[in-house]
Amino acid sequence: MKALLELLVKGPAMADWALDRGLMYGDGLFETMLARGGRIRFEELHRARLDSGCRRLAIHADQDAIWKQARAAAAKHADALLRLQVTRGVALARGYTPTGDETATTILAVLAPSADPGVPTFLRVRTVASTLGENPALAGIKHCNRLEQILARQALAGSNAFEGLMASSSGLVISGTMSNVFVELDGELVTPALERCGVAGVMRAAVLREAARAGVPVRVTDVPLAALARVRAAALCNVRMGLVPVDELDDRQLTHSAGLAMLAGRVAELES
Amino acid sequence: MKALLELLVKGPAMADWALDRGLMYGDGLFETMLARGGRIRFEELHRARLDSGCRRLAIHADQDAIWKQARAAAAKHADALLRLQVTRGVALARGYTPTGDETATTILAVLAPSADPGVPTFLRVRTVASTLGENPALAGIKHCNRLEQILARQALAGSNAFEGLMASSSGLVISGTMSNVFVELDGELVTPALERCGVAGVMRAAVLREAARAGVPVRVTDVPLAALARVRAAALCNVRMGLVPVDELDDRQLTHSAGLAMLAGRVAELES
Repeated sequence: MKALLELLVKGPAMADWALDRGLMYGDGLFETMLARGGRIRFEELHRARLDSGCRRLAIHADQDAIWKQARAAAAKHADALLRLQVTRGVALARGYTPTGDETATTILAVLAPSADPGVPTFLRVRTVASTLGENPALAGIKHCNRLEQILARQALAGSNAFEGLMASSSGLVISGTMSNVFVELDGELVTPALERCGVAGVMRAAVLREAARAGVPVRVTDVPLAALARVRAAALCNVRMGLVPVDELDDRQLTHSAGLAMLAGRVAELES
Repeated sequence: MKALLELLVKGPAMADWALDRGLMYGDGLFETMLARGGRIRFEELHRARLDSGCRRLAIHADQDAIWKQARAAAAKHADALLRLQVTRGVALARGYTPTGDETATTILAVLAPSADPGVPTFLRVRTVASTLGENPALAGIKHCNRLEQILARQALAGSNAFEGLMASSSGLVISGTMSNVFVELDGELVTPALERCGVAGVMRAAVLREAARAGVPVRVTDVPLAALARVRAAALCNVRMGLVPVDELDDRQLTHSAGLAMLAGRVAELES
């Protein structure tokens, strides 16, 4: 992979990779993290989400060992992107049912910051026709079943949009393909509820926490697709880009929101 | 993996496995096939589904080479299960967007027939609370995003049911976790439509084809969960077990359907 600096693998020997349940079924979880000054930003939030995902999927992994390795890798690089993946491990029997005795595979890829293209100066977002299936049991966690996001990115190819806005199969706005979204709607700051689909991003959690600290009300609620026409301002967020204002949504120019700009400034300063 | 006889791999060298998009995102497809007398049963139907999946996900794989290898492997074993997987290959860049230049990874695992536990003499099926998200772009193909099936199998653990019946997030009966389903409902033979979710099984296709040949009407339509109470007879199917009658559905004993029994007999004889 382009810009790969280091690859630390704890997993099966050569041929067994082909039988890792991560490969067979996307049976795993991952975290994309930013290291700054040798430390993982928002480590606790990343750890909480991975831990929650492992518990929900009943993947037994040694969380302490994983984060010790991740911290050590981050310490060796002033600035880096870290991709941490945990799968249930090599299949012990045929079929979907895990035996419960699998040994989790952990993969930590350290990438140069240049692996990330960065945010364009004029940020265009476009609603994509690709939708997200709803499953409360999988909502929120960053699992490895990502074909919906891949299809959405493919649908976006050839357009001038940096990010695609995805709705659920019920017609609710959920998120970008690789980011969460905040909007100014009817005078309120709003971010979509993620009870039925979508990834509960670490930067989204940090923004919500900062909003609470700053006394800025942000409502977590359902946002129907039809409401997008009334959105005056919007911002995308993930740990790589922070909270960044959207300039254009579906060919319509947006204004900038003072509230979102203030929150963007606050989260940019945070290390955890 | 238990009962593994042979493992043929065309893929990246050791460390690169960790960056295969199959492992990272479940970005791939698979076929589970039965070889009898050295030949792959229903090879054409499997090939058609894999080919359709590759086209829908824009995965570029050499289908001729894949099936030549699969046929050669089957020829070496009188009876075997074959698991063929094709992924988009090792990631060439960070993120969900494929570059389009990836080299597909193909994996063919040959397993002893004993890898399959077989069908119990009294077949119990239970509706599971785990649902299937709806996405027409992914419906029908046998892709590698299978966490929903894994969650359903986990939910079934500890029950005495052989198979779990899954509904869509809209409350329509779709399929078993590892099989398709035919039911006798209001005097008609019916199998659920799979336009919004579910895998269009090869055995399901074979059963529908035999029904048409035999002049037995089978309706492909939506089956609401509430209709299950009126189901008099049911059968599950996949290429491993054929079409087998269900004895008990949600603790209610079913009758056997003469129409489904006739179709089961017909498909059992088929080689392609």
